[in-house]
Amino acid sequence: MAMGLGLIGYGGMGRWHHENLARVEGIEVVGAYDVQPMRGELAAASGIRNYASLEELLADPRVRLVTVATPNDFHKEHVLAALAAGKHVVCEKPVGMDAQELVEMMEAARRAGLVFTVHQNRRWDEDYRIVRRTIEDGAIGTPFYIESRVQGSRGIPGDWRCVREAGGGMILDWGVHLIDQILWMVDSPVVEVYAHLLSVRFPDVDDNFKLLMKFGNGLSALVQVDTLCFSNLPRWHVSGDAGTLVVDDWSCKGRVVKAKTVEFRMEEGIVYTKAGPTRTMAPRPVESIEELPLPKVETDWADYYRNVLAAVEGREELIVKPEQALRVLRVIDAAFESSSKGICVRMQV
Amino acid sequence: MAMGLGLIGYGGMGRWHHENLARVEGIEVVGAYDVQPMRGELAAASGIRNYASLEELLADPRVRLVTVATPNDFHKEHVLAALAAGKHVVCEKPVGMDAQELVEMMEAARRAGLVFTVHQNRRWDEDYRIVRRTIEDGAIGTPFYIESRVQGSRGIPGDWRCVREAGGGMILDWGVHLIDQILWMVDSPVVEVYAHLLSVRFPDVDDNFKLLMKFGNGLSALVQVDTLCFSNLPRWHVSGDAGTLVVDDWSCKGRVVKAKTVEFRMEEGIVYTKAGPTRTMAPRPVESIEELPLPKVETDWADYYRNVLAAVEGREELIVKPEQALRVLRVIDAAFESSSKGICVRMQV
Repeated sequence: MAMGLGLIGYGGMGRWHHENLARVEGIEVVGAYDVQPMRGELAAASGIRNYASLEELLADPRVRLVTVATPNDFHKEHVLAALAAGKHVVCEKPVGMDAQELVEMMEAARRAGLVFTVHQNRRWDEDYRIVRRTIEDGAIGTPFYIESRVQGSRGIPGDWRCVREAGGGMILDWGVHLIDQILWMVDSPVVEVYAHLLSVRFPDVDDNFKLLMKFGNGLSALVQVDTLCFSNLPRWHVSGDAGTLVVDDWSCKGRVVKAKTVEFRMEEGIVYTKAGPTRTMAPRPVESIEELPLPKVETDWADYYRNVLAAVEGREELIVKPEQALRVLRVIDAAFESSSKGICVRMQV
Repeated sequence: MAMGLGLIGYGGMGRWHHENLARVEGIEVVGAYDVQPMRGELAAASGIRNYASLEELLADPRVRLVTVATPNDFHKEHVLAALAAGKHVVCEKPVGMDAQELVEMMEAARRAGLVFTVHQNRRWDEDYRIVRRTIEDGAIGTPFYIESRVQGSRGIPGDWRCVREAGGGMILDWGVHLIDQILWMVDSPVVEVYAHLLSVRFPDVDDNFKLLMKFGNGLSALVQVDTLCFSNLPRWHVSGDAGTLVVDDWSCKGRVVKAKTVEFRMEEGIVYTKAGPTRTMAPRPVESIEELPLPKVETDWADYYRNVLAAVEGREELIVKPEQALRVLRVIDAAFESSSKGICVRMQV
């Protein structure tokens, strides 16, 4: 019999979970609760139970797994309530407003002996998997820079996402994904965090930010999210000591560019600018470089819930471990501290 | 009668000054001194005097202006010698190994009552002037990010430029230009400097770096120089609250992209990625944005020396003031400190 799933929160993401869980064998969405009655009616109209209250949802014995998809400042309350009711829990990202909230949730899950994980679904993004695969394959040698960006020009939706007290802003919304992706692929602790969080159009939250991280192995990573950018830079730009990897956007066009031969005469192809010649920044002779296609990857978001199910059934380890989400939130906490105080936060995370 | 100019150092940049000064009316290159006799012979072969020693050059009464184009760790010694001999001085960049060296030179110039300036020639680069003009014209509103990059894949020339003690490395070579360009266009003090200086192929110096600066007015600037990058990002990417400016490279192709109308429905054009929908990062409807060409600018590097001549003759203020070069070196000093200690350097420069 399929494991019953209850949705706390039936807004945009709650509905998205519902629709897409149809592809996950072994999990059945049985109902939803939303504080807004109109959304509960949507749930009922789509054929699942519309719980009248959170308590009713949590009291339903058919619900063994709960997905929390409420505004960020309600996550802790809803996760703790679900755990207290004996449910396994998937929580939307960011799982908490800060690392301390997550520590409390992790402690509650540990005590209850229940599975608790975070919907860091962008680990299954095709562009990200291509970057991981390319690096693992050694195609660019040892990476020394990772640049990960998402850029839009539409601002922030006019709901709780632009309210600081509700956990709004781009570092908690998108930053949490981009940081998680990098931490999940770099096998080294974060040792420095420095950030510029700007509030250009939305005075209460960060609507454009840059975050520089340094890892213990010397790797430097730039994470950037913009909501006021009309001409985007590539989604990924990764420099390795043997080549450069670029993924342009979510369509996953891109390339690996590298030298065929490392040696060449510095004098070849000097660039004469109006302000003087440069050898260092002259382009290489075309015949000395090669451009390779990106690897093909197969990725399926539904593997996230398949893993959650397997973890509940004791067949697999969780892929998204709360300890990993905790590292991400510690970096985000550091980014807020860095930007507000004008400091670099040193850490071992 | 033209003002006589003596060149201290007749390497690549010394010869470039010589060749290009032919276009500057009122200045005549009379001779050069180089510690390497072969270079002195090159000078003689090109029709100017080959001084047997620095003292001989400085004793020549025809020389009223000296251009110092020696390795970076010799600048102070040569500038001070030229000033002591009563010559006006142009010094190649970086004018000193650190800010303290420049303070000594400025003090000597002040005492001697002589003109002293730095060859920050990239203030005359076409790409830079286009960026300045675009911002001054208000085409992108108030800028909140400036990103300035030069990227190559050829490493560093194998001379003193890859030796730390000689003032090698990219922040002193290219960083000094890119920082100077930004400081000359932003009317606000630098308040924070944070840098990652990497030594990927050249263990003694920084061969790839990122530097984040924050200004007192809130502006955030990223300066990046790479020598191991096979797929370049745009030379300039500037985000303003009313649009985005991109200059691709030294050919000065680029564009201003902005909204025709600020308002639109968030629901239009949601992007469905494998890992979920996004409204924030969905592209705007094409009809809601417009792309404008970059302004045309006229720029002439020779205006640098024309201004030096006018300053010597008391007709104009110096364009490249030593006080400005001092700000740049204070930022560079801070970048070295930031990177080696893992801190953000707070300042008012």
